[in-house]
Amino acid sequence: MPVCTLLTDFGTTDYYVAAVKGVLLARAPGAAVVDLGHEVAPGDVEGGAWLLAAAARWYPPGTVHLAVVDPGVGSERRILAAAAGGMLFVGPDNGLLVPAAEAAAGSEGGGELREVTREDLWLPGPGSTFHGRDRFAPTAAWLLGGGALADLGPEISDPVRLELPAPRRNGPAGAGGTVLAGRVAWIDRFGNLVTDLPADWLGERACRVEVAGHATERRAGHYREVPAGEAAALPGSLGTLELSLDGGSLARRWRVARGEAVTVRLR
Amino acid sequence: MPVCTLLTDFGTTDYYVAAVKGVLLARAPGAAVVDLGHEVAPGDVEGGAWLLAAAARWYPPGTVHLAVVDPGVGSERRILAAAAGGMLFVGPDNGLLVPAAEAAAGSEGGGELREVTREDLWLPGPGSTFHGRDRFAPTAAWLLGGGALADLGPEISDPVRLELPAPRRNGPAGAGGTVLAGRVAWIDRFGNLVTDLPADWLGERACRVEVAGHATERRAGHYREVPAGEAAALPGSLGTLELSLDGGSLARRWRVARGEAVTVRLR
Amino acid sequence: MPVCTLLTDFGTTDYYVAAVKGVLLARAPGAAVVDLGHEVAPGDVEGGAWLLAAAARWYPPGTVHLAVVDPGVGSERRILAAAAGGMLFVGPDNGLLVPAAEAAAGSEGGGELREVTREDLWLPGPGSTFHGRDRFAPTAAWLLGGGALADLGPEISDPVRLELPAPRRNGPAGAGGTVLAGRVAWIDRFGNLVTDLPADWLGERACRVEVAGHATERRAGHYREVPAGEAAALPGSLGTLELSLDGGSLARRWRVARGEAVTVRLR
Repeated sequence: MPVCTLLTDFGTTDYYVAAVKGVLLARAPGAAVVDLGHEVAPGDVEGGAWLLAAAARWYPPGTVHLAVVDPGVGSERRILAAAAGGMLFVGPDNGLLVPAAEAAAGSEGGGELREVTREDLWLPGPGSTFHGRDRFAPTAAWLLGGGALADLGPEISDPVRLELPAPRRNGPAGAGGTVLAGRVAWIDRFGNLVTDLPADWLGERACRVEVAGHATERRAGHYREVPAGEAAALPGSLGTLELSLDGGSLARRWRVARGEAVTVRLR
Repeated sequence: MPVCTLLTDFGTTDYYVAAVKGVLLARAPGAAVVDLGHEVAPGDVEGGAWLLAAAARWYPPGTVHLAVVDPGVGSERRILAAAAGGMLFVGPDNGLLVPAAEAAAGSEGGGELREVTREDLWLPGPGSTFHGRDRFAPTAAWLLGGGALADLGPEISDPVRLELPAPRRNGPAGAGGTVLAGRVAWIDRFGNLVTDLPADWLGERACRVEVAGHATERRAGHYREVPAGEAAALPGSLGTLELSLDGGSLARRWRVARGEAVTVRLR
Repeated sequence: MPVCTLLTDFGTTDYYVAAVKGVLLARAPGAAVVDLGHEVAPGDVEGGAWLLAAAARWYPPGTVHLAVVDPGVGSERRILAAAAGGMLFVGPDNGLLVPAAEAAAGSEGGGELREVTREDLWLPGPGSTFHGRDRFAPTAAWLLGGGALADLGPEISDPVRLELPAPRRNGPAGAGGTVLAGRVAWIDRFGNLVTDLPADWLGERACRVEVAGHATERRAGHYREVPAGEAAALPGSLGTLELSLDGGSLARRWRVARGEAVTVRLR
């Protein structure tokens, strides 16, 4: 029984998620549909791309990841399907799929990418505002049913990409005097700041971490080691540096939003 | 593996949804339980009925749709089961099921309707406040397991109906001078106003759409065609007229609530 | 196909729930993963324990209940697995599992309890902040795949317990002059106050129920019997006394939080 994850910005108050699942189950009976998440902010392609890349890697080979954060629905933007690292991805060509596909493929380029042009698979509507139901879900169902990726349309090599700055360092990993420059890639429910800086760039060295005019020199291995009422840096669950506050939301305490610059000064 | 959708006003912070699913899985092992939604406002039968009708139609034949928005739980209100258009419905007799059943049946009357009187199937409680768990779930499980609708109780023809005004027009479809009178049937997460006016009543004619003292003469095919910062009318995903704002919530901008009157003047 | 419920305090905006499900589905293909709930307040072990005990009992034998409300993640706290009443439980040793296991076992002690020490099953990380993904999910998957509880680690008899006051009465059940002393164990979405007082302690006797300086002498069998605009006591869906307001949230009207003392004076 193939697994299909579903990531959208549809929220949970409307009929949209349920309609997508209905089409999936009608076209791919027996598929195990799993919510990857529906609380992406409306139209937040960058946030959706981060969530998809963070979650997809934990799924078994053969999983189809269907993602719909699609402010351009109905316009001329392309529809993509990709195979990477044994998993399959379906979604709009707006940057949403690329980070996850590249992570799964283990290389830039993100495996095999195709523009979906199989109009015969699609539902006729009504309207042109719900491609999640009318085009993406039937495409994912095709793959869930064992249909070949190559039959969905021509291969492409120029997917739309999000232009996100990569983390940088001005010296060797973990060496004193090195400065690391990254950003807050995600803020979680607990108010932790998840950065894009690989935790192994810091090693065990003493350091000072600066965000939004605040700073900490504390290091911890997990949340319980964060000193009472203080902020500390720790290795997060995706292998990147994370900043956490004991007893509350660090994002609120330091007034930090996603995208804020993070500077680490190694001693 | 039969599919069972679940629509409630239980929210997601309590044990209620999980208990209903437990009973479904205990009584109908292997059923694929899918959340249709749980964020219906407490006791909002009209909202639940709209969601059920909008979502149910996308599911495969044989699906059992279990819906529990039931402010009369424990009182003398009847429990209904219905078969319409190859799908099955279970819920309270308060108007919740009828629009979806009629849509599935393609006709007024809504297929075969039965009052559920099979007390032997029900759980004994405790209490009389949770028929979703004690009565509706065992009834749905009966149908999921292949039990006959006819065995659930006597056929009825007088289900409780919501008294919602039907959309009206004073002239032929799409003709100049015609005035269409409908209402806002739903407001979605994005702040779009989904009306009950069939989009094909407008055709391609120029028109003026009025809601709550505001108006637009803009038409669009999808969201990207809505002019920057403006409101426009477009054909929605259920085949009805929808009003959308570029860059935000039209419901908030125009201060519109569900049920607000919509007038369309065709030129 | 075994059922695995999942209770966490992860919320639904992050990648955490999806990652746990990915590991479960990768390690136990075909498992039916059901959300027990993810809106437990961050670190609220008592709330999570109440929800788990309330919901778990409705699931079929063989169900694995995976619960992760784990403020001590990464520290030396133990990981528990339990078998009770035909069901299995996995979670941190912080009191979260004990009430549900005891309820399932029908006795204090909660069936067979083991400390999970099978490090060979666990994922290596990265980081030490996400045992839900790296340790609990692989442990639950072991049980879902038919692995023996006894192979997970040594049996223990000293699990961490929540120290919650038990409900008390100063006289025989239902007798006049008896005073019952309990607490508000849960406040639901509708604002109902779910107490820990067994409903059969009251019988059919007249009584006065006092909470937070407010009181009612009204009794009802279900919500529709609560007089307009008033509060009343009724037998709740878990067999305990519940207090409900007609037409709104009693918790808000009376300004009651979870844990508030409840006194019942039988006449």
